[in-house]
Amino acid sequence: MDQFHPPVKDMIFALREVVGKGELDSNLGFEDFDGEFLETIYQSASEITSEVIAPTNKDGDRHGVSIEDGKVSVPNGYAEAYDAYVDGGWSTLSCNPEYGGQGMPALISMPVNEMVMGANFSWAHLVLLTNSAIRAVDAHASEQLKDLYLEKLISGKFSGTMNLTEPQAGSDLSVMNTVAEPSDNGYKITGQKIFITWGEHDLSENIIHLVLARLPDAPEGVKGISLFLVPKFKMNTDGTLGERNMLKAVSVEHKLGIHGCATCVMSFEEAEGFLIGEPNQGLACMFTMMNDARIGVACESVAIAERAYQQAVNYAKDRIQGRTESSQSRVSIINHPDVRRMLLSMKSLIEVMRVLVYENTFECDLAESKSEHDQRADLLTPITKAWCSELCQDITSIALQVHGGMGYVEETGAAQHFRDARITTIYEGTTGIQANDLIGRKFINDNGSAMNELLDQIENDIGVSSIEDNLKSELNHAIEKSRNVSQFILENAKKDPNLAGASSYNFLMMMGYLVGGWIASRNITAAKNKIKENDDFEFYNAKIISSTFYIEQFLPLVMSFGNSVMHGSESMMSMPDEQF
Amino acid sequence: MDQFHPPVKDMIFALREVVGKGELDSNLGFEDFDGEFLETIYQSASEITSEVIAPTNKDGDRHGVSIEDGKVSVPNGYAEAYDAYVDGGWSTLSCNPEYGGQGMPALISMPVNEMVMGANFSWAHLVLLTNSAIRAVDAHASEQLKDLYLEKLISGKFSGTMNLTEPQAGSDLSVMNTVAEPSDNGYKITGQKIFITWGEHDLSENIIHLVLARLPDAPEGVKGISLFLVPKFKMNTDGTLGERNMLKAVSVEHKLGIHGCATCVMSFEEAEGFLIGEPNQGLACMFTMMNDARIGVACESVAIAERAYQQAVNYAKDRIQGRTESSQSRVSIINHPDVRRMLLSMKSLIEVMRVLVYENTFECDLAESKSEHDQRADLLTPITKAWCSELCQDITSIALQVHGGMGYVEETGAAQHFRDARITTIYEGTTGIQANDLIGRKFINDNGSAMNELLDQIENDIGVSSIEDNLKSELNHAIEKSRNVSQFILENAKKDPNLAGASSYNFLMMMGYLVGGWIASRNITAAKNKIKENDDFEFYNAKIISSTFYIEQFLPLVMSFGNSVMHGSESMMSMPDEQF
Repeated sequence: MDQFHPPVKDMIFALREVVGKGELDSNLGFEDFDGEFLETIYQSASEITSEVIAPTNKDGDRHGVSIEDGKVSVPNGYAEAYDAYVDGGWSTLSCNPEYGGQGMPALISMPVNEMVMGANFSWAHLVLLTNSAIRAVDAHASEQLKDLYLEKLISGKFSGTMNLTEPQAGSDLSVMNTVAEPSDNGYKITGQKIFITWGEHDLSENIIHLVLARLPDAPEGVKGISLFLVPKFKMNTDGTLGERNMLKAVSVEHKLGIHGCATCVMSFEEAEGFLIGEPNQGLACMFTMMNDARIGVACESVAIAERAYQQAVNYAKDRIQGRTESSQSRVSIINHPDVRRMLLSMKSLIEVMRVLVYENTFECDLAESKSEHDQRADLLTPITKAWCSELCQDITSIALQVHGGMGYVEETGAAQHFRDARITTIYEGTTGIQANDLIGRKFINDNGSAMNELLDQIENDIGVSSIEDNLKSELNHAIEKSRNVSQFILENAKKDPNLAGASSYNFLMMMGYLVGGWIASRNITAAKNKIKENDDFEFYNAKIISSTFYIEQFLPLVMSFGNSVMHGSESMMSMPDEQF
Repeated sequence: MDQFHPPVKDMIFALREVVGKGELDSNLGFEDFDGEFLETIYQSASEITSEVIAPTNKDGDRHGVSIEDGKVSVPNGYAEAYDAYVDGGWSTLSCNPEYGGQGMPALISMPVNEMVMGANFSWAHLVLLTNSAIRAVDAHASEQLKDLYLEKLISGKFSGTMNLTEPQAGSDLSVMNTVAEPSDNGYKITGQKIFITWGEHDLSENIIHLVLARLPDAPEGVKGISLFLVPKFKMNTDGTLGERNMLKAVSVEHKLGIHGCATCVMSFEEAEGFLIGEPNQGLACMFTMMNDARIGVACESVAIAERAYQQAVNYAKDRIQGRTESSQSRVSIINHPDVRRMLLSMKSLIEVMRVLVYENTFECDLAESKSEHDQRADLLTPITKAWCSELCQDITSIALQVHGGMGYVEETGAAQHFRDARITTIYEGTTGIQANDLIGRKFINDNGSAMNELLDQIENDIGVSSIEDNLKSELNHAIEKSRNVSQFILENAKKDPNLAGASSYNFLMMMGYLVGGWIASRNITAAKNKIKENDDFEFYNAKIISSTFYIEQFLPLVMSFGNSVMHGSESMMSMPDEQF
């Protein structure tokens, strides 16, 4: 009923599509990863995720986590899943080889992350947040801290958390209150943090909290925030666990979804901590992980959408209801055109989203050596994060809808994906934050240059793609619209200070659907090439159909989002507050 | 925090907009209802809904209903709310005066229903389902049954339910298994029904179940279904309660939302029942209530959306976060353009949806005496039901989004509206069912004639409206698109048997957004007239802004849904089942 089979073949198709289009940088070692190798590791990851992790998903949702005296109880099977994941070495894929990692490009590990998140989204937060902590420590911590913590984090012996948010400081970190006082051993951290994912549990031996706090003499605002490493158990210099640090989880949130994930309120009372990076550079340290974390949420969005889709397909094939024009007997509902529309909407969107996530990841990988990729990765990230997470809401809602009344009953499981998905447009920067980032820092600030390069590339790729002429002309029409809208914004943003904010959401969604069309056209070309090589006709022909469906059904939204932008900010800003 | 204030002034604006545009049929007695009278009853309804019913909402969600030995326990405050509602005579507004009703047009009671549903959506199902049962009994039952049951149902002494669905018979009632055997006193009903709203409780003295079942000699399929009245307690001929009937609730569903509403699995074991209407005409009897029930769901959608909106506005005004271009100090988030976009999106959609619901209700009222209104009511109903309920999903999701991370925490209350809303696109016919009804029975079957009349009226109304020329031209463009799309479907539906089903959803959504544009233009005209009369400038100017915003931001979707239709059914139908 609620089984999960990672779509390994689809993932490899997406991966090849992305790597094929760009340069293969030998520094990244992509040439080491031939098809057979990839298939081997993904099949192996598929087994552990579908057989060990996925079965913990539903119970995890039903029973959730609980807290008593600062001790968090986790659902059944979580510990076994954690051990299997760690023992299999899955936590080490893209980590630094100096500390026991396997040094693979992030692109190679992304499909594994996708599988893990699809298998149990709540549980997966534990290992993915640890990944983020590893990146921060690896990039910014002193050699001494790295020697003490990094190998244990990479191996999964320890887990990690990110402590940013405070009740009064959500999207705006500048008003953070947590303080760090210098002490003999480092710093004493005092304050309260909220929304701390897996802030407490006993699945790993130790929990390494990365905490943003202010030094006593820190400047006001975001320029006065520093990053600290604060372990749950202090570490002796020989690497053994010492005494308990002065921090604890005081409560866990009662949330709409991800019930199987401990979202903690953490209290630090003169907890021993160590500075990571330079004083007052905490936000900059966090920002080095920002792209990763945001693409991570987009990848989650693909993963939950895929799982919800699989469940809806199974239900639509099994559920007998009604007749069709051409059938005398009752049929399974997959035969009803409107149900097919729902299934194909999900499938076509997921396939495009997956490539976008991999593409953005690849640009990040390449950015480590080439700066033009850095710019592209920065431009794509807010689109990837916001657009994929918004679509994830739609897809999980469609999946529930396919189930009819049964979808509204929790036992079916469709509702869980719908509830779980709802966090993705909120955390790691809401859709509004992403839209502002895109239209401001990534677009207006460079006078549209990076965006222009992307639009040029899209236009060029469409030109050489092997798609039908009518689809080509619709895509070109959409590109033209996007250029006009971009021009409109650049011309008017200076005159109207509210324009950027007022049109940011529509601009982002327009770009999302356009980029989706670009990817759909590339998918068609890639699939046609595969068919020419006499590879699995049914599979690749289905890719052509679903990508065509995307262009037919979703590309038209480029025009409507674009038209909405062109109406400017007047109506939006002229409504007096008291009339809301 | 989770307060609710029915927007009485907005409701009266919408009501006048609707009544003003059509003929006032003196048979309906609209002339009796002047502004002062309406304001009096709606203010009074507003008080009981906001002060007595609304405070039960959150607790009702948190504690939900439970069942033990067939006895359902309801949340605190439900009984007091029920008594206050019934004692105030609110259940009687639109009911038959011969049996204690007040005989008002449905249009007049619709705003009261909206208030009740906004106050506590779960609780409201009890009184609204009873309304449906009253209509069925009043329209089809024998005088004897009416004399025994109708007055008690109307007064609220008894409540009513609708028993249609069985596990194998959801949208397709033709395969129903429940049977009715003739007996001395009437019939013996045996079978199991699912999704029975308020199938069991002790808020009323008796529960009157309307049950679809088959007679022994009934033809197969939908032509062999009859409707029965099956009371929880048998009635003595003197009107006193007799012994318990052989029926019971065997479980209550664990649902995504409406936790405070008892959704029961009901078991009937040779329960005593009485035929309503003619044998084998059960479905026809049900269909007389279908428009009402579907418009009812649309009204619910407005109600939940309004409540979610109010909460989001309050949060946006209170929550201090970040700075704007023009401010030095921190601001409440309502000042951020993208937050305003979200709030104004909700407001503008709700205002249009409300008029559509009232309009459709008015057409139903008028249809009782004039058949052209019957046709219009039939055409609008699937659009009203599906489009408003789809928008309700969007609006409650936006309201949650405005709350950021707090929206994902259940204590905030935003998540409840999001969960509650999710049922509206499912029950009383899914969006897919509505879309099929629209494109088949209501459009293709009369060769587009009723639709043409609507499009002509929209075009005419736009022509004489006092909206700006640029908005007028966008509306005319959208009408032209809708005409082209309609023509495309009529021309191709015969050649392609899948076209209707494949394009039904896009066609319905296109028509919904077009009808919304029509209403927005009428709202602007009405508001401008009010301003000319020197009435409350701020209020009516806000109506002009929000309606303009609708045309700018949502009307463009007419084009994209229309373009999606024009791509036909090929991609959708050519995907082999095994490739999903």
